[in-house]
Amino acid sequence: MKEYISPIARLINQFTKLPSVGAKTAERYAYKILDMNDAQVEEFAKTLIDTKKNVKLCSVCGNFTETDPCKICQIRDKSIICVVKDARDVLALEKINEFKGVYHCLGGVLNPMDNIGPNDLRIKQLLNRLDAKVKEVIVATNPTVEGEATALYLAKLIKPLGIRVSCLAQGISLGSEIEYTDHATLSQALENRREI
Amino acid sequence: MKEYISPIARLINQFTKLPSVGAKTAERYAYKILDMNDAQVEEFAKTLIDTKKNVKLCSVCGNFTETDPCKICQIRDKSIICVVKDARDVLALEKINEFKGVYHCLGGVLNPMDNIGPNDLRIKQLLNRLDAKVKEVIVATNPTVEGEATALYLAKLIKPLGIRVSCLAQGISLGSEIEYTDHATLSQALENRREI
Repeated sequence: MKEYISPIARLINQFTKLPSVGAKTAERYAYKILDMNDAQVEEFAKTLIDTKKNVKLCSVCGNFTETDPCKICQIRDKSIICVVKDARDVLALEKINEFKGVYHCLGGVLNPMDNIGPNDLRIKQLLNRLDAKVKEVIVATNPTVEGEATALYLAKLIKPLGIRVSCLAQGISLGSEIEYTDHATLSQALENRREI
Repeated sequence: MKEYISPIARLINQFTKLPSVGAKTAERYAYKILDMNDAQVEEFAKTLIDTKKNVKLCSVCGNFTETDPCKICQIRDKSIICVVKDARDVLALEKINEFKGVYHCLGGVLNPMDNIGPNDLRIKQLLNRLDAKVKEVIVATNPTVEGEATALYLAKLIKPLGIRVSCLAQGISLGSEIEYTDHATLSQALENRREI
């Protein structure tokens, strides 16, 4: 027995599929599972399957949901749409509890290197949502080359419809130190300076 | 939706039961599960349950096994028994591929603070294994207060039976730096110095 017995090896292999989990961490997780009692492991397995089965993407905005359309699409202000990369970003924005409008998940960003073009994203669905009620579209993609290219692409499509298009402010993060802030961020912060 | 929808919250809660997994890591794992397809999630869940069902503890040595007694107990040299805390330590020792004897997992170490006494460990089962064929018992418990107390306790029980009792060598780890080695380890290394 120079290696794991096969059921343990299979479990370790499953855990290594999780992000940033290497062989050693997966081994710890597998041992923890073996330490649990049968009911606990069954609950774990059941939760995995139930979650996958019950969580769908909202047909309107593409956010994770149990109902369709999702609760946000059902009750919130439809005059302002925040466009994000995916449902994870919706959650980050919801946590600050300030945005009262609805969302639109693109399902990614434009990326020619990975062959992701406009037709691979939910851009048509976004354009279909832009009726007379919509006053503003906030494009909240990541401040990366791909994210910004996507934002510019969307702005070009949406502005001609007479709808305001905005993006998130860029600058130094709260609590960060100017000394250690990277050049590009500092340059953006200087350019976007505001009166106090 | 200030928080996760309930199936996602339940899945995150399950992942936080794994060692060293906090809310943020559990969230990443949960999203990874949602990214997988149905078949992959089902396989993950099935592996959890199958592993828990198929992996037993060997009735002789207490190691993880699919067969009983385990493969090590079936074929290896029974004249030398290596006593370890639990099955995880067996694997660590098996990986160096040098020890040719059999193992005995105690299921823990003596720890008065946690009310773990000799009757809570598989010590009686160890004594029952000590027949005339056994020449040496290596006590490979961790070099902690509890581990060493357990080793001394076992030595007191086993030595009178005329069986050699040994423990692992203590000293500075390979590749470590003397400058940064803690006092206790350095003191042990000096005391246990050997001729070259």
